[in-house]
Amino acid sequence: MTAVTTPTADRLDERLARIALGRVYEPGDHRLSSLAEQLGAVRLVEELRRQRVDKLESELADRLDGVSPRRDLDRAESLGIRFVIPGDPEWPRQIQALAGLPGGRGRPGVPLGLWVRGPLRLDEVERSVAIVGSRSATSYGAECAAEIAAEVAMKGFAVVSGAAYGIDQAAHRGALAVRGPSVAVLAGGVDRPYPPSHESLLAALAAEGAVVSELAPGEHPTKHRFLSRNRLIAALTRGTVVVEAAHRSGALNTAAWAGRLNRVLMGVPGPVTSASSTGVHHLLRNGGAALVTGGAEVLELIGGVGEHLPEAPRMAERRHDRLTSDQQGVLDAFGYGEVTSVDALARDARLGLVATSVALNQLAALGLAERVAGGWRMTPDPALQPALPSDDRSPS
Amino acid sequence: MTAVTTPTADRLDERLARIALGRVYEPGDHRLSSLAEQLGAVRLVEELRRQRVDKLESELADRLDGVSPRRDLDRAESLGIRFVIPGDPEWPRQIQALAGLPGGRGRPGVPLGLWVRGPLRLDEVERSVAIVGSRSATSYGAECAAEIAAEVAMKGFAVVSGAAYGIDQAAHRGALAVRGPSVAVLAGGVDRPYPPSHESLLAALAAEGAVVSELAPGEHPTKHRFLSRNRLIAALTRGTVVVEAAHRSGALNTAAWAGRLNRVLMGVPGPVTSASSTGVHHLLRNGGAALVTGGAEVLELIGGVGEHLPEAPRMAERRHDRLTSDQQGVLDAFGYGEVTSVDALARDARLGLVATSVALNQLAALGLAERVAGGWRMTPDPALQPALPSDDRSPS
Repeated sequence: MTAVTTPTADRLDERLARIALGRVYEPGDHRLSSLAEQLGAVRLVEELRRQRVDKLESELADRLDGVSPRRDLDRAESLGIRFVIPGDPEWPRQIQALAGLPGGRGRPGVPLGLWVRGPLRLDEVERSVAIVGSRSATSYGAECAAEIAAEVAMKGFAVVSGAAYGIDQAAHRGALAVRGPSVAVLAGGVDRPYPPSHESLLAALAAEGAVVSELAPGEHPTKHRFLSRNRLIAALTRGTVVVEAAHRSGALNTAAWAGRLNRVLMGVPGPVTSASSTGVHHLLRNGGAALVTGGAEVLELIGGVGEHLPEAPRMAERRHDRLTSDQQGVLDAFGYGEVTSVDALARDARLGLVATSVALNQLAALGLAERVAGGWRMTPDPALQPALPSDDRSPS
Repeated sequence: MTAVTTPTADRLDERLARIALGRVYEPGDHRLSSLAEQLGAVRLVEELRRQRVDKLESELADRLDGVSPRRDLDRAESLGIRFVIPGDPEWPRQIQALAGLPGGRGRPGVPLGLWVRGPLRLDEVERSVAIVGSRSATSYGAECAAEIAAEVAMKGFAVVSGAAYGIDQAAHRGALAVRGPSVAVLAGGVDRPYPPSHESLLAALAAEGAVVSELAPGEHPTKHRFLSRNRLIAALTRGTVVVEAAHRSGALNTAAWAGRLNRVLMGVPGPVTSASSTGVHHLLRNGGAALVTGGAEVLELIGGVGEHLPEAPRMAERRHDRLTSDQQGVLDAFGYGEVTSVDALARDARLGLVATSVALNQLAALGLAERVAGGWRMTPDPALQPALPSDDRSPS
């Protein structure tokens, strides 16, 4: 389904009609969105007022008479808030995927429009990732969210989240810390900071990124509006990363939307002893989420093919890495913690005595073997020493 | 490939011949194992002595004259050590799966026999799981290993590991703590505790479970023997759980054997910030391992179908769980943190004024809503209060 492209002269009427509809209907109404697409919002409002549209309740149609979309728009503009609708150059086309979902479950309608505050244009957030999770995040989860947000934001991907406590705010802050793009999607008006204590976080996002809502300025969040908001977070982004989520976490609702929209679903594991990670582990086990451990892996999954290949993990080179095959053969022939004769080493390594002796002296020079009473032994490798302390020595 | 079943009278000769071969050849020699299966070890030894077997080196054949298998066996029996070979009632049949692997890589040969110390019979460890991981385990990893080991051991599954520092010892101890079956597979003789500081752990396993090796008593561990030992841990068990493993961990070698043998491969995630979990996360991402968070999930994967269904996670019932649809509708109509009039609630909930008032009073009785100046509001839910402290209040 493509966005309505009414002639430019009609755009203001279309915009005002969509504001009016948004004031009367709760977000996500699939039938309303479809009708607005098919008829245009101007005609839909006319039809509703004439009550000729089946099944749409006349009470709601009556309420259309009481709204003042022009005043809403003027007031919003005076606050630096714009209203973006389908067909506008700024409209984020990826969000239209909602139109393809069946209407029965969870109010998936394409938003009538998006109220936006901030310099970031919504048509520039196609390269984006949602980072969501528990409001009662642990410091581990907050650290992971901020790290991943910073990494993807540095590559120009917008970090989209819900500005809630915990993981959401850590994700926004991670992006802001590297002056990367970040978008908060709210369940109430963009002029009403929620939670109220995140007022300055939202002010920072409005100054450098964007604060977005399908609810008009002044509207308050409700439970259903939070759930509707979650579909926008999933629909705006290429993929959703769940960092921490207990069972029943709202983040799992966003994850479900990402799944329905066939967007990439990712989860960051945590300690299995942490209740804050149980929901993520469930997603990783049964929910089709891919395990990611950092921003590079997120970029690998959401980036274009070959656009972001994560670096192979680098390991410190060990002394053993550059041995000749004779040296390695002799070293492997040692018993662990054993003093071994040159004869026995030669036999086990299947080398001659001379070759074995040469290799032994080279190993000694490398600090890997040493001559002791009765033969030779491997020099203990600090990396192989026990890391567990006393209880290793006195098992009971 | 089935085990050789020579007549009972010949079992001692077969046993002695296998001991002799084991003294001369390093573990895992695929061709030697195959020949022993096909010819019987007695005839193989004869053929080797006559040097009529192609490509087996004559030097090794010569050394067969120097071994004393009868003395080895007598000495072992005096130490309470038995030697179990294919065809014995105690032979663990699941280990024969090694015969099906291609010989080219990593010496997968079926062991010539297994030296065993301890009361646990090897034919009773078919219901078993390997729990392996890093020697330099964290306390988190050790706790996970011990917990999982205890859970599966309580269900009668033997916990098989390598008695190394870290995860291995935690797994054995977890099983011993519930007096469950546990088997240590060593890379040297079962009479030689390795690491030496685990002497009393190994003594406990020999007293209540089993200590096993394909190397004869007195033999010392080498690097290759550790790698060969890992194949036995994988082959003895229905599945392998990797709890913590850095890159290059030996546990990943055991995991690779489990994969080649089509046994269930499992990994316990940890913090992505922990180097000790990087190898496990890699297995979970790219190695085909299933994510498990506890013993119940391990049992689900390795148990018979329907034998072990993990309990669905139980959640504390919340006050909201038993509301009527009217009560829920009114509750959902509240703005978060907003004082709302009965009129507005009625409109948003699409209920009449009377029904709304009834529901409000019921919600008040449940402690979910309260009447305040100007209308009603939701009673703040402690579970929804911010968990992050000061920085939530002063975002900067």
